[in-house]
Amino acid sequence: MTMQKEDLTSFMKRRGFVYQGSEIYGGLTGIWEFGHIGKLMKNHLDNVWKKFFLSLDDNFYEIEGSIIMPENVFKASGHLDNFDDPLAECFKCGTTERADKIIEEKLNRREESATNEELLKILNENNIKCSKCGSKFEKVSTFNMMFPLTFGPKGGQTVYLRPETAQTPYLDFKHQYELLRKKLPLGLAIIGKAFRNEISPKHSLIRCREFEQAELQIFFNPKNINDEKISDTANFSDIKNEKLIVMLQNERDKPLKKVSPNELVKYGLPKFYTYYMAKVQQYILDILKIPKEKFRFYELNDKEKAFYNKNHFDIEVFSNEINDWVEIGGVHYRTDHDLSGHEKVSKTKLSILDEETGKRFIPHVLELSFGHWRSLYTLLEQHLHYDDSRQNNVLKLPKKLAPINASVFPLIKKPEFQNLARQINSDLIENDIITSFDTSGSIGKRYARADEIGTPYCITIDHDSLKSGTVTIRDRDTTNQIKIHKDKLSETIKNLTNDKIEFLQTGEKIK
Amino acid sequence: MTMQKEDLTSFMKRRGFVYQGSEIYGGLTGIWEFGHIGKLMKNHLDNVWKKFFLSLDDNFYEIEGSIIMPENVFKASGHLDNFDDPLAECFKCGTTERADKIIEEKLNRREESATNEELLKILNENNIKCSKCGSKFEKVSTFNMMFPLTFGPKGGQTVYLRPETAQTPYLDFKHQYELLRKKLPLGLAIIGKAFRNEISPKHSLIRCREFEQAELQIFFNPKNINDEKISDTANFSDIKNEKLIVMLQNERDKPLKKVSPNELVKYGLPKFYTYYMAKVQQYILDILKIPKEKFRFYELNDKEKAFYNKNHFDIEVFSNEINDWVEIGGVHYRTDHDLSGHEKVSKTKLSILDEETGKRFIPHVLELSFGHWRSLYTLLEQHLHYDDSRQNNVLKLPKKLAPINASVFPLIKKPEFQNLARQINSDLIENDIITSFDTSGSIGKRYARADEIGTPYCITIDHDSLKSGTVTIRDRDTTNQIKIHKDKLSETIKNLTNDKIEFLQTGEKIK
Repeated sequence: MTMQKEDLTSFMKRRGFVYQGSEIYGGLTGIWEFGHIGKLMKNHLDNVWKKFFLSLDDNFYEIEGSIIMPENVFKASGHLDNFDDPLAECFKCGTTERADKIIEEKLNRREESATNEELLKILNENNIKCSKCGSKFEKVSTFNMMFPLTFGPKGGQTVYLRPETAQTPYLDFKHQYELLRKKLPLGLAIIGKAFRNEISPKHSLIRCREFEQAELQIFFNPKNINDEKISDTANFSDIKNEKLIVMLQNERDKPLKKVSPNELVKYGLPKFYTYYMAKVQQYILDILKIPKEKFRFYELNDKEKAFYNKNHFDIEVFSNEINDWVEIGGVHYRTDHDLSGHEKVSKTKLSILDEETGKRFIPHVLELSFGHWRSLYTLLEQHLHYDDSRQNNVLKLPKKLAPINASVFPLIKKPEFQNLARQINSDLIENDIITSFDTSGSIGKRYARADEIGTPYCITIDHDSLKSGTVTIRDRDTTNQIKIHKDKLSETIKNLTNDKIEFLQTGEKIK
Repeated sequence: MTMQKEDLTSFMKRRGFVYQGSEIYGGLTGIWEFGHIGKLMKNHLDNVWKKFFLSLDDNFYEIEGSIIMPENVFKASGHLDNFDDPLAECFKCGTTERADKIIEEKLNRREESATNEELLKILNENNIKCSKCGSKFEKVSTFNMMFPLTFGPKGGQTVYLRPETAQTPYLDFKHQYELLRKKLPLGLAIIGKAFRNEISPKHSLIRCREFEQAELQIFFNPKNINDEKISDTANFSDIKNEKLIVMLQNERDKPLKKVSPNELVKYGLPKFYTYYMAKVQQYILDILKIPKEKFRFYELNDKEKAFYNKNHFDIEVFSNEINDWVEIGGVHYRTDHDLSGHEKVSKTKLSILDEETGKRFIPHVLELSFGHWRSLYTLLEQHLHYDDSRQNNVLKLPKKLAPINASVFPLIKKPEFQNLARQINSDLIENDIITSFDTSGSIGKRYARADEIGTPYCITIDHDSLKSGTVTIRDRDTTNQIKIHKDKLSETIKNLTNDKIEFLQTGEKIK
């Protein structure tokens, strides 16, 4: 098994997962669309993410916020003042680049905390030139990534496209807290679009101007941050046997290590924070099935971490495609930064009553933030392999994330076979199984097409199907085949997809 | 049964369905958010819409487009030139209003085709004054509803937020057609956000600046527009017994009538168009269960209909709340307007080969367009009743659209009952049933809370549950109760929700 050679962006386009926005107009930089196969996969990813994170506590919920928000929201959040990137400009040809990112690419140095002057100096001292015309960069300036919008018919009001989904849960916290059980921890999750006017979008779904996030904001009482009890249904000890793969800020020259939650608590991380790190790792390794050796939590230091965070580990996956670790999310202890900021600017009381002490307090926030499209990119990259013996790509996605659950292939062109196959296909669809019905080309070609988009099971209808009602199921990963009666097909495919049974248990093995 | 008196917007906020965006900052005009209950309902509506419309043909698919699109897209589509509303201005206090809409409200006249001068004349002749200061309107001008955006770090490029989801399927048609079976009809659907800088947003989810559409674009060969065969799996005769509720453009002074598809074809509508009208009516009446007498197809005349349509019926529901018919969607025969426009401006060939004739042609488009949030508003309004005998609101939503499938109530506070109830709740959740677990207040109050958000089934755990493992299910609509063993609970709730069994079949009836 070797990695396929086609680059991922071409693969995604060729098979209808993802392609650039408005392509017939030459494409829009940093804007992407999902074809029907990609959309199916993204729908599954939404469901898998929600199922995992919302079931961590029975007081976690999904809400949906607006994309357009008023200016004061971003004054309070700090985005208008701080949501900047350093813009390097070549005066000769007008090219602009993100200064810290070209330095990272060329010199493998992270300079998230350098000033504009320092960045310009690093560029010039290291002979990093404009990629278009080869001149030296003349200026590094601060560029705010927010998209402003003129709102209303008289044009008097400036509003913004949200740069993250996080703000809505903060604005809505009080209302939702009162609507629900007035109980903490309370989790409010949003999967949705966010917009950033990125200086240099890159690597398709990795750095875009329009993209999706999946974020969970957990509101909690800071006095409980080191309690053994995380919530009514969860305890710190539940995760004590996990080994977290971390790179601490002072150990970047050392190899990655596996650390127990207790050790991380001794290192200084709160129990509440560490518990959710462990859950994030479970999601990455057990649900998305990213290989262990490709995953790490990367701790940011004081200069690097986002302005609102007290503790900040990036969730990183190593990309062969990009040849670097890629941030696909983060675990952010945002303290009371957000609620206090909004209380101050909106002049709305956001504190709540601690019934034990009789005192009011502002809840703190732990944010689990995922670049949802980055997860999707990662899934495709990590699970796409070229199979030498089959001589085709096999996309070994976790079964629940495969766009199509099962493909149905009538082997013979005669109407009676086609009709039986159609009827079997309809039965599967009625049982909420997503199918594709493929009648064209040799059976080998049909298997190859299905393998490449990750379809776990292919069902063939042949002479036996007409005679005795049996069909053949072929397994994507092993190419093993079994025979089964068609009346048991939907239930079997469902159980296989949900890992309730293994392939060999389902019927008579062939060969 | 009488309608509840609280207005719908307050109800939606109080129960956590929908509320204004950024409320703690005073709220943003025309911007709305979904609380956790509303989000659950909207997720169900997404699923119900997709299940119905995508299964109309095995060549219909969901895709996802970008919100940001380049200027040329809207040059080609005609939106930059034509997507305007008439803006009436009061020079004295600066108030702006949508001229045609105040005329419609005050005079009950539709003036969608009047010029600005004519509108100003109508306003002044009928003594319609500024609602704020009482002065007469001085000017009616043309206002384009598109939201422009400055894109990229150098700010040189103007892009727009899409005003409808429709354009992406047109841009992607050729690519998707080739990826799929090169077969027509091909349907491409999008559920997603669209943005319009409305002059006067109104009635919460009905006229917003940020909202969601659910649109299906059906590409077909115009030579087949009057064929009996609609697709491989559908025929015009399948719907011949339907009676479509229509108001034709020349019969507006007459009562609504029920017309057979054949009569509509005689009237001049294409068979392809009429077939999908029938399907839309099935969706509204059978799936959303909007009462027949509140629904009509309303035909627009040449002056009123959108600039790109050859045939145009609005899908309308009568709102008691607004005291008028409200457009919740439309059936639009857009001809080759869109593909031809994009071919011309993008200089990309969008025609395809007709294998029978050997000639190339540009497919035509039939669009089924829904204001998705308008459907949600309509569902809440039409199904919310005040029940005099219960003395509480009952939201009689179709079961699949109810935010919560089942509520679990332990009747007794002792730990053994609470634990059993929690375990039963977990079993339900594991079977993908959405539950709420409510332990506070009298049983009557808990039923009332569940009724008001439309929860079809409430499950109580009592002494019998501990002794013999039975629980009681109570039906929202009849308040009838039955007993059932807890081991059969998940399956029963699922079958009830999917209308596979009726309430009385499920067990021993009480009383």
